[in-house]
Amino acid sequence: MSENKLTSQATDFSAWYIEAIQKADLMDYAPVRGCIIFKPEGYELWERIQAGLDQRFKATGHRNAYFPMLIPESFLQKEKEHVEGFNPEMPWVTEAGGEKLEERLALRPTSETMIGHMYSRWIQSYRDLPVLLNQWANVFRWEKRTLPFLRTSEFLWQEGHTAHADEVEAREETMRMLETYAEFAANEMAIPMWTGQKTPSERFAGAVDTYSIEGMMKDGKALQAGTSHFLGQNFAKAFDIEFLDRDNVRKHVYTTSWGVSTRLIGALVMVHGDDKGIALPPKLAPTQVIMIPIGPPKLRAKVMEKFSLVHQELKAANIRVRTDEREETPGWKFNEWEMRGVPLRLELGPRDVDSNQCVLVRRDTGEKMSVSLQGLSDTVQDLLTAIQASMYERACEFRSLHSHLHIDTLEQLKAHIAEAEASNRLAGWVLGGWCGDDDCEGRVREETKFTSRNIPFAPPLHKEKCLACGENATHSVWMARAY
Amino acid sequence: MSENKLTSQATDFSAWYIEAIQKADLMDYAPVRGCIIFKPEGYELWERIQAGLDQRFKATGHRNAYFPMLIPESFLQKEKEHVEGFNPEMPWVTEAGGEKLEERLALRPTSETMIGHMYSRWIQSYRDLPVLLNQWANVFRWEKRTLPFLRTSEFLWQEGHTAHADEVEAREETMRMLETYAEFAANEMAIPMWTGQKTPSERFAGAVDTYSIEGMMKDGKALQAGTSHFLGQNFAKAFDIEFLDRDNVRKHVYTTSWGVSTRLIGALVMVHGDDKGIALPPKLAPTQVIMIPIGPPKLRAKVMEKFSLVHQELKAANIRVRTDEREETPGWKFNEWEMRGVPLRLELGPRDVDSNQCVLVRRDTGEKMSVSLQGLSDTVQDLLTAIQASMYERACEFRSLHSHLHIDTLEQLKAHIAEAEASNRLAGWVLGGWCGDDDCEGRVREETKFTSRNIPFAPPLHKEKCLACGENATHSVWMARAY
Repeated sequence: MSENKLTSQATDFSAWYIEAIQKADLMDYAPVRGCIIFKPEGYELWERIQAGLDQRFKATGHRNAYFPMLIPESFLQKEKEHVEGFNPEMPWVTEAGGEKLEERLALRPTSETMIGHMYSRWIQSYRDLPVLLNQWANVFRWEKRTLPFLRTSEFLWQEGHTAHADEVEAREETMRMLETYAEFAANEMAIPMWTGQKTPSERFAGAVDTYSIEGMMKDGKALQAGTSHFLGQNFAKAFDIEFLDRDNVRKHVYTTSWGVSTRLIGALVMVHGDDKGIALPPKLAPTQVIMIPIGPPKLRAKVMEKFSLVHQELKAANIRVRTDEREETPGWKFNEWEMRGVPLRLELGPRDVDSNQCVLVRRDTGEKMSVSLQGLSDTVQDLLTAIQASMYERACEFRSLHSHLHIDTLEQLKAHIAEAEASNRLAGWVLGGWCGDDDCEGRVREETKFTSRNIPFAPPLHKEKCLACGENATHSVWMARAY
Repeated sequence: MSENKLTSQATDFSAWYIEAIQKADLMDYAPVRGCIIFKPEGYELWERIQAGLDQRFKATGHRNAYFPMLIPESFLQKEKEHVEGFNPEMPWVTEAGGEKLEERLALRPTSETMIGHMYSRWIQSYRDLPVLLNQWANVFRWEKRTLPFLRTSEFLWQEGHTAHADEVEAREETMRMLETYAEFAANEMAIPMWTGQKTPSERFAGAVDTYSIEGMMKDGKALQAGTSHFLGQNFAKAFDIEFLDRDNVRKHVYTTSWGVSTRLIGALVMVHGDDKGIALPPKLAPTQVIMIPIGPPKLRAKVMEKFSLVHQELKAANIRVRTDEREETPGWKFNEWEMRGVPLRLELGPRDVDSNQCVLVRRDTGEKMSVSLQGLSDTVQDLLTAIQASMYERACEFRSLHSHLHIDTLEQLKAHIAEAEASNRLAGWVLGGWCGDDDCEGRVREETKFTSRNIPFAPPLHKEKCLACGENATHSVWMARAY
């Protein structure tokens, strides 16, 4: 942590990202292809994300379970689209206990097949439905290009898997969990998400309909941050998940699945970070307040007594506070903790002690203020609330600023992108009309590298013509370059 | 759940165990060799165990991290004893992303090697020490004989890994975590454990000293329920984990590792279960109180109003309460919830409503009592506390009853075992003297199937002669048949 300067976001966003997550001590590269270590500062973000989501899953009637990580190859073969989608990405166990296995076992890329197999054993009657399970687990996708948190060979996630007696209920579940993700992202991560439906070409392998939450990163690119799938009866038919209904007829269930992953850590960094480093929303920050003593060593004793009292007071108020009493200059420490994204810095020097004050500095705005030590924990709590709200507002404003609603043709889109590149501005997102034809979507992708993100439920504007072919549009689609 | 009778423990303890965990809906067998599904009732026990331990780990300065599951074969080769110990049990990934890998990757059986490699990069100076990390993860050991929760091909666990500047501190850490396990087992799981040192033949592969907590199951057998290892400088040397000390000399660190696993769920079942099914200590039970309405359907309306109020009151008092309003007989439900180990049953019928009372029945003792609905949540809370304490006391008494201190020779041990078998009593545990010779330990094992459990720090009696050879004893060792 000796070199306290980052590449600026404007110079090279990718370089900034890699430097920022390392200097914030969130991760390290692992000695296994495409894998990372989640270091304590990074893992604690995941623990807080887990806690917030787990509470929401349980409040909506779900329970956690754990299924085996190894999936027999024959299971994956049962749903044709599914295996085609995941096959190229899977690592295989072929030997165990000193012997060659008769059947290869895949390291799970997702668990629809394993869970589908078990549901076919557990579900017999309408009385057994709905089944509402979730699993927190590690998963594997051996992808060509990897990027810490966003795309790694092994990552951590949750996968919800539910089974229902009818389509309406399964579709409600699909939407409920999508909205749960969006609400969590807004209220805890301070990230506004567009909820909407993926186009057929971007659908989950084996799903009838896939829905996503999509967030805008600081480089204007999109990040698919979570998905919720209505699987219809595809997996029910592949795995014989049948039940005897009230009308005494055997039927296939309808299933859903939905997931978010450690990718969300990458979203936090790319949405809130700036040239000083990462910036964490108070609700998820492992450390909410960093306390730094100020002033010459000879006056330190006087400061430290008060310092320790203030520390105790904030701790007692359940504020996640940490002190930095190392032998480094205050300036060095300021940089360091800004780099690590701590929402609030508290400075206390000899003069502050005399006047019963301290200095607070906001990470998000840089605003510096002297406040009384009287009632300090309330002041700090209020400020943390204000920072959380303000980070969300800024992310919303940023998204608005870089969302383009009045680009109606592919030519206009190309011109927009060229202009952005020439003037070093962000191309951002474009809401385009779409006729529903895969070819039109493909043409946009090939000619601009803009991909369909999702078809928002509430687009800010309804488009009348397809951006690519000019025919009548059936949908308005967010298009952007994406991770 | 139609057949509500279990094989009795006395008839066939193994059969009882398998039936009990299935009827309590804790698990199901998976379609992968030696793997199980942790169903919600079983997984929630693990979640509560995790929460209790995680809080204790954090209170003692540890933080969580996550390391890759795949370990390159060359890493495992670096510590000779370690690889010899684990090699026969490992599954290997040999193909990924459509290609054959140049080096095989093991599914982690434990992470000393991966973490050792990273520590060698992270630790440079005495200022970086101690490093106190823990990981919650899935691990793999492809063993020949498997038994749900106790020995499965994949299981869930935590593994603490710490690095220290000197031996004294590392040894203190080893003991601190062992004591943490024992305290948790006593206070939350209601299980008394003997803490002590493993004999060299039972040491963790690569450790200098291994310590364990050992619990006595209801069949008199021992279960090693957790281990804490002082690894000395073995892994530090194998992985070059060096630091520059205050005296400006480069030194190898001292490391420790310690773990408990989903095996603890098996311990809960085998320590507290009886012929009616499993029995859960209130602190860990997913459901603490099961409420069942009583009386004829025509009087149900009158009962249900009060029933619902009582449910709300208990819920508001943070008691984990659940109702069973299914159309089954009360008797059937009583069986069912006893089978699932719910600590307390609450019955409410029309006459109870009239007299403002309800009936409470303890799972542990079967005791039945009428209590006033006035102040019910306090009554219930007090009873749950009493049940927790009483389950621990009973487990302690059971252990005392089946611990044999006055068997001094191998001949006496054989006679004791023969007598126990003839009279259908449990052989239990024997505290034997031991001269420290592997051969003596081996002889006891071969001739009696009693293995060394551990050398307790505070044996209830110090033995003077080796049980096997009659020479002077250097240690008193718990010996028993074990899982």
